[in-house]
Amino acid sequence: MLKAEINITLKRTVADPQGITIKHALESLGYKDLANVRIGKLVVIKLNFKDKKRAEQEINEMCKKLLANPIIEDYHFEIKEE
Amino acid sequence: MLKAEINITLKRTVADPQGITIKHALESLGYKDLANVRIGKLVVIKLNFKDKKRAEQEINEMCKKLLANPIIEDYHFEIKEE
Repeated sequence: MLKAEINITLKRTVADPQGITIKHALESLGYKDLANVRIGKLVVIKLNFKDKKRAEQEINEMCKKLLANPIIEDYHFEIKEE
Repeated sequence: MLKAEINITLKRTVADPQGITIKHALESLGYKDLANVRIGKLVVIKLNFKDKKRAEQEINEMCKKLLANPIIEDYHFEIKEE
């Protein structure tokens, strides 16, 4: 069985109000040395097969078709055996 | 400068309706070999200092105090130099 961990983040140029809010909240808790906070999504998919090459190709397609919005988001993923 | 990548996921025993919905959507696109889909949050924090030990301690505190809900969520993080 393979496990894909997909990280989907807003592109650098896209504003991230949720990240700014969390940065302010952390600062009000006393953490003053923060340069930047950005929020993203994590999608963990377990696959019922063991062909890593097929997994890479299919996960890439899934990101492009459904999981990420390529206009405002970047994604990267890692595939591990389980 | 240090960069912390924090992955926050629902505990195994907690239902994840968003993950189930995405699994169904992927299946309807033709990806039939999925065992499981789980959704989590990704928080990327850039820190204005270089002391890795301090970073680990502070990120751990931030997760416990604000970022994760320890009753239903697990978290793990990696700290890298930038």
